[in-house]
Amino acid sequence: MKFNYSDNIINFKEGTVIISGAGPGNIKLVTIKTILALKSADVIIYDSLINKSLLKYCKKKVKLIFAGKTLTNRACSQEDINEWLVKYAKMNKKVLRLKGGDVSFFSRGSQEINFLKKNKIKFKVFTGITSAQAALKENNKKEVDTKLCLNLITGHKQIKNFSRKIDYNYLVNTGGKILVYMGISQIENIKNNLIKNGMKKNTKISIITNATLENQVIYNTKLTDVTDFVNDNEVKPPSIIIIN
Amino acid sequence: MKFNYSDNIINFKEGTVIISGAGPGNIKLVTIKTILALKSADVIIYDSLINKSLLKYCKKKVKLIFAGKTLTNRACSQEDINEWLVKYAKMNKKVLRLKGGDVSFFSRGSQEINFLKKNKIKFKVFTGITSAQAALKENNKKEVDTKLCLNLITGHKQIKNFSRKIDYNYLVNTGGKILVYMGISQIENIKNNLIKNGMKKNTKISIITNATLENQVIYNTKLTDVTDFVNDNEVKPPSIIIIN
Repeated sequence: MKFNYSDNIINFKEGTVIISGAGPGNIKLVTIKTILALKSADVIIYDSLINKSLLKYCKKKVKLIFAGKTLTNRACSQEDINEWLVKYAKMNKKVLRLKGGDVSFFSRGSQEINFLKKNKIKFKVFTGITSAQAALKENNKKEVDTKLCLNLITGHKQIKNFSRKIDYNYLVNTGGKILVYMGISQIENIKNNLIKNGMKKNTKISIITNATLENQVIYNTKLTDVTDFVNDNEVKPPSIIIIN
Repeated sequence: MKFNYSDNIINFKEGTVIISGAGPGNIKLVTIKTILALKSADVIIYDSLINKSLLKYCKKKVKLIFAGKTLTNRACSQEDINEWLVKYAKMNKKVLRLKGGDVSFFSRGSQEINFLKKNKIKFKVFTGITSAQAALKENNKKEVDTKLCLNLITGHKQIKNFSRKIDYNYLVNTGGKILVYMGISQIENIKNNLIKNGMKKNTKISIITNATLENQVIYNTKLTDVTDFVNDNEVKPPSIIIIN
């Protein structure tokens, strides 16, 4: 298929960084902007959650750096990534930082943005589909979605520098659906917090693993059973937990 | 630019409906899936918030139906749209329902989905970028985003059939950022609810109007001033209000 605009429409300049959200995994859920950035980049620093098939859009002479981080396996540190971004931008390269999901939704994008600012490197951020959107779509097939409030939280313990903790007492009572990113390893903790603050034990829980990919699995259970369910079914990240 | 897959990869069958989120407005923030659906559809029923430039991807013989709805101008009713979806699917057409943003985030997608189910019409939903993502990206340029919780709500009064109301007392106290869809016409009401429930009067407010489009405007004010600010500056929908 052909598009009616040229690759330079995104104005990817030498010596600058684009931080782009590559979406939840399915290659067809990537935006045109990200595809154009992939085609134009000299250096691409990519996370483990991005779909590797996307790399087929790269130039032949591209430098690819895998910066995969998972809970159990740290391929490199956040400091390494920060340094690479600045190093290659200073070498006058077009540097693409390709992250899973959307940079603005519980990614560590802000750490990279701050480091770029500190080093006076120009950058742009491209929005991507976040995995909670794909998960919510699957969830909405089962029921009419009539909630006026969606609460998106991260279950990941290791996010640093947060200004305030989540107050589960309030969260339980907003009247909204709760969507949890990176919550699998913290599931017992999250369950206990919700029940302690008044959420009903038979509240419906859906877990969507590998949303939008061929190996997507949708699990359904209830709050009181969720830890055993996760253990028995060996539910692994990346997963979004939807609490109704 | 060329893509390595054929248009039939989305498997858009005759007599079925695809409900697709066309993103916040910028034509380059559309997903590959939506572009492929546009190229293949026989009938396209589109909302006022979609970027009309997208329609250039259509087939020559496509039937285009404008189904624009705004607060002040109702081009057609939800019932009309429901009926068209079923009518053209029964005529064995490939029917594309193109909506602004993401179908799963405060759209009326569920009403259309229920009607299709009732009439036994097969459908798929394609996820799109929702405007709050683009708004959050702009907001994050100003500050380090360290919140562990995002609360997305709709300010629109007219959404029917909601199961529970938003409890502002709890919402104020989750510790998260609040992103309001369709809140401009309800701004005085929202402001009063937040202040009454303990939110500080000098809380920072950003309003992003026409996010991702050439006429995007970012406004900054504080909670106590927000109604006057909206009136003085004639802030109009579509806007996302970010309450920090």
